[in-house]
Amino acid sequence: MSSVLGEEQKPSRIKIISRNDVGVSRCHSGGGALPARPPADPEPRAVPIPIPPCAGAAPGPGKGGQRGRRDGPLPAPPQLCSGTRGAGKKVLIVYAHQEPKSFNGSLLKIAVEELTKQGCSVTVSDLYTMQFEPRATRNDIVGHLHNSEAFNYGVETWEAYKRGGLSKDLVEEQKKVQEADLLIFQFPLFWFNMPAILKGWMDRVLVQGFAYDLSKVYDGGLLQDKLSLFSFTTGGGPEMYSKEGIGGDIRYVLWPMQHGIMHFCGVKVLEPHICYAPENVSEEKRKEMLAAWTQRLKTLWKEEPIDCSPEWYFK
Amino acid sequence: MSSVLGEEQKPSRIKIISRNDVGVSRCHSGGGALPARPPADPEPRAVPIPIPPCAGAAPGPGKGGQRGRRDGPLPAPPQLCSGTRGAGKKVLIVYAHQEPKSFNGSLLKIAVEELTKQGCSVTVSDLYTMQFEPRATRNDIVGHLHNSEAFNYGVETWEAYKRGGLSKDLVEEQKKVQEADLLIFQFPLFWFNMPAILKGWMDRVLVQGFAYDLSKVYDGGLLQDKLSLFSFTTGGGPEMYSKEGIGGDIRYVLWPMQHGIMHFCGVKVLEPHICYAPENVSEEKRKEMLAAWTQRLKTLWKEEPIDCSPEWYFK
Repeated sequence: MSSVLGEEQKPSRIKIISRNDVGVSRCHSGGGALPARPPADPEPRAVPIPIPPCAGAAPGPGKGGQRGRRDGPLPAPPQLCSGTRGAGKKVLIVYAHQEPKSFNGSLLKIAVEELTKQGCSVTVSDLYTMQFEPRATRNDIVGHLHNSEAFNYGVETWEAYKRGGLSKDLVEEQKKVQEADLLIFQFPLFWFNMPAILKGWMDRVLVQGFAYDLSKVYDGGLLQDKLSLFSFTTGGGPEMYSKEGIGGDIRYVLWPMQHGIMHFCGVKVLEPHICYAPENVSEEKRKEMLAAWTQRLKTLWKEEPIDCSPEWYFK
Repeated sequence: MSSVLGEEQKPSRIKIISRNDVGVSRCHSGGGALPARPPADPEPRAVPIPIPPCAGAAPGPGKGGQRGRRDGPLPAPPQLCSGTRGAGKKVLIVYAHQEPKSFNGSLLKIAVEELTKQGCSVTVSDLYTMQFEPRATRNDIVGHLHNSEAFNYGVETWEAYKRGGLSKDLVEEQKKVQEADLLIFQFPLFWFNMPAILKGWMDRVLVQGFAYDLSKVYDGGLLQDKLSLFSFTTGGGPEMYSKEGIGGDIRYVLWPMQHGIMHFCGVKVLEPHICYAPENVSEEKRKEMLAAWTQRLKTLWKEEPIDCSPEWYFK
């Protein structure tokens, strides 16, 4: 067994280059009524986004233009909300929805605007727009293989990471993760789980040596200095995702994501943000959901991580 | 809300055309020692496969050649195991590993050979070899969209299904599912879950109208006449995946897959088949694991499905 302990090599903090600029204005409100999706695969519609004004903040000169770019760092506005703890923080939002006009698109827009307003530097990995590759294949390794006789993805990406031989798209995503203080995952729940394109991001980006190592997992994981937050929409309502509901407690589906991935890498986990069945509620309720997200983001940096143990999920 | 209840349209039973023939001999034994993978992402090595002879069976003329083709139906051998209940059954194995020489490759080979020997017709969807697309995008809909103003994947695939407008690769996979009595999913556990390429198969193939409908879910799902079986390898051992272990009870990770996907579509769920940490055990133990899979398959058709309720997973 050629496991190499303690040989992890963290990538240098290189400035992220934007490769896909899309104005926030693209993510506009009012997508119109779309047919409902079943509980396993919601595609809620967007609604007008009421963003409460931030007391003491003046709009930055680039509002709606320079700000809110996707897949690139956002400059801090000249004036910040008073009392925020977010100033100077770096946030990576990994976003998995095909449609900017969707409710998920609205949640993304709110997060970009609110966090930018706080003085955070926000980077968005818009996976569908990037046409992010979810398949874990030999293409992720540049040059020779460690063992060309029998391909072992985990070993090969580990070895490639150590010699700087991972494919360009993975290196770029790892740089974003390395820079970030907070990772937000924004997606519609898709078969009790994240969509495949986002699962592929987890599979390919969080390679051994970068995110964890054999002796460095869970509280000892290599990404201990980071926070994470899973923000998602569902098709079913809260009664469906309760202990007595047919879908079971919503926390059951969070175990593999929060504990099995983030906690495994040492990333601390904030309470998830769940918008239940936005498609099946009134326009007013949807606006309330969006306002609640804005409100939560305002005090996000004061939150304590959850105790990511089985008790939180299954008690 | 334009939900259409009861309008599901089952595809006709068209013979599956093989589009990717790969002899079982490709999946040979003895991959040599590979470095270990961490618990979240195992890539165990292959071992020589001892396939116990089937009493009363004579080898078919095409053994090792015609038999064991991937991604195509397999002809029944001329003589069957006495007493088997598998004769005439159709099995679809959805396989997600990059390397035929892997332990997963060995498990696949065993399943193909043993089930074929029983007289089953076995079809394999070898997702990596097929370069199966995991991303759920507009490309899955042929022709016009139901709503081109705001793309809603679930609605669009539902509408496309009803008018026969899904992309060719999805139609082919749906035909395989429709034909099958049993679905076997063979994969390495990857971040407490299935690999993204397999999650993409679930996301894209099991569309509304085909696998479920708004009023037809769980025990009323549209695929009620089928069985399923999740067969996978882990990096961690059984002690890690126990209630007291850091990974928690292995059944926790099965909830989204078995209950959230299969049960949701009405598919009955057989006990999972789990090979714990084949990389970290002796060659003898690995052979025992493979022999145990063969043995299980011999009596598979006599098994009763699990009670796919929260009690099975979390009690």
